[in-house]
Amino acid sequence: MNILLVFAHPEPRSLNGALRDIAIRTLEAEGHAVRQSDLYAEGWTSEVDRADFPALAPDGRLIPVAASKQAFEAGTLTDDVKAEIDKLLWADVLILQFPLWWFAMPAILKGWVDRVFAYGFAYGVGEHSDRRWGDRYGEGTLAGKRAMLIVTAGGWEEHYAPRGINGPIDDLLFPIQHGILYYPGYDVLPPFVAYRVDRLDEAGFERVAEGLRERMRTLATTPPIPYRPQNGGDYLIPSMELRPGLGAPGASGFALHRADADAAG
Amino acid sequence: MNILLVFAHPEPRSLNGALRDIAIRTLEAEGHAVRQSDLYAEGWTSEVDRADFPALAPDGRLIPVAASKQAFEAGTLTDDVKAEIDKLLWADVLILQFPLWWFAMPAILKGWVDRVFAYGFAYGVGEHSDRRWGDRYGEGTLAGKRAMLIVTAGGWEEHYAPRGINGPIDDLLFPIQHGILYYPGYDVLPPFVAYRVDRLDEAGFERVAEGLRERMRTLATTPPIPYRPQNGGDYLIPSMELRPGLGAPGASGFALHRADADAAG
Repeated sequence: MNILLVFAHPEPRSLNGALRDIAIRTLEAEGHAVRQSDLYAEGWTSEVDRADFPALAPDGRLIPVAASKQAFEAGTLTDDVKAEIDKLLWADVLILQFPLWWFAMPAILKGWVDRVFAYGFAYGVGEHSDRRWGDRYGEGTLAGKRAMLIVTAGGWEEHYAPRGINGPIDDLLFPIQHGILYYPGYDVLPPFVAYRVDRLDEAGFERVAEGLRERMRTLATTPPIPYRPQNGGDYLIPSMELRPGLGAPGASGFALHRADADAAG
Repeated sequence: MNILLVFAHPEPRSLNGALRDIAIRTLEAEGHAVRQSDLYAEGWTSEVDRADFPALAPDGRLIPVAASKQAFEAGTLTDDVKAEIDKLLWADVLILQFPLWWFAMPAILKGWVDRVFAYGFAYGVGEHSDRRWGDRYGEGTLAGKRAMLIVTAGGWEEHYAPRGINGPIDDLLFPIQHGILYYPGYDVLPPFVAYRVDRLDEAGFERVAEGLRERMRTLATTPPIPYRPQNGGDYLIPSMELRPGLGAPGASGFALHRADADAAG
């Protein structure tokens, strides 16, 4: 398979850098073609602003959604964004690797999403009717491809447990996994998360490394998170609310949007 | 009161710009002192990298948490970060205003958090013992102050409803409201969210504007979201899991961390 790893840590001599190298070596040993977007090393620009839309009149009002649509259609996105879009179209699997900073992506990676996920490419795709609400959430440009997160966290695993104070890790990652990756069509694999990474000794590192190698070796066969496709009948149109009766009784929150939430009730 | 508004939209002639102006005018008419951090206008740098830590040896390995701690203690953070910390200490109320891009903050605002919320200032504060796990989640440097989000979203309100496909807006904002604002001590007011902002007509705009004015006039009296303080007895130490019996029976997810979740059961 073709695999794109987007890496968002400023220090190559970090735990993240070491895990990145392990992931790439393992994937290559499996016979995959691997490309990388090393955002810090490449000096990625994080901010969506006027410079993203060179075709916009100098005194024109910048409406980001409209400007993105116009630039994608006219082929006037900037070269750095176009190169990332080409990589995404090339890759069968997208891996985003980052340290969890303030319970979310580092800004540089959010800026990669904000700038690369253009209107007409990652959103604003497909017809809107009484039976469909665009190609999103399981359909879209990137449907048929797989995506996965590799995340490091300084905190304890228990603090991210179902009743942990930070909130469950699955819920913290939902805006990324469902909102950013499933939205344009990716099948999203369960994340690989390493905890307490500031305190890892050699044995701890080796445990993490072996877990990551195993996930890299099983990239093609790991079942994705069973998010509900938008246009598969589970949602009312146009309100896009989950149909009454679906989801475990009394359940709420992000977990409702997994098809296995029905069985869990 | 002293109020800091951090603004993260690239176009002053936008709906966000208009709402920002309305918020500031209303606050000033109420007699408050208002300062602003207009991140795009000021050319804010989004990426945490070596340039943040001028005291770090040129060939030294960058460990962001350790470098942040060292720089905060030694007073060697960069001037732009120091200026924001001074504003946060000055302000009784912090307002973050942004368009919801990919279900999260724009990169430039995430970069403001990543860079300004230094170790020793916003995290890594307080003692760790068998009775306390640091000053966080309701305690910390910014305790006693209030914070609030002003958010615009392109999507329909129904899509962000409790059973809406995007996930409930309260859950999407939890990593910000609980993980970024409540963590260093802020009392977090309910957010002001405007939906379908790409389709607002004049009457729709006036409705939104009046709602915002009302929220600005009641900033001092609006009850905060009743998140559970970490060290108040609701959590086990050190696992920081919510004690058995707390939260509605069968409940899961972020809502557990509201003290009113017990009553809701």
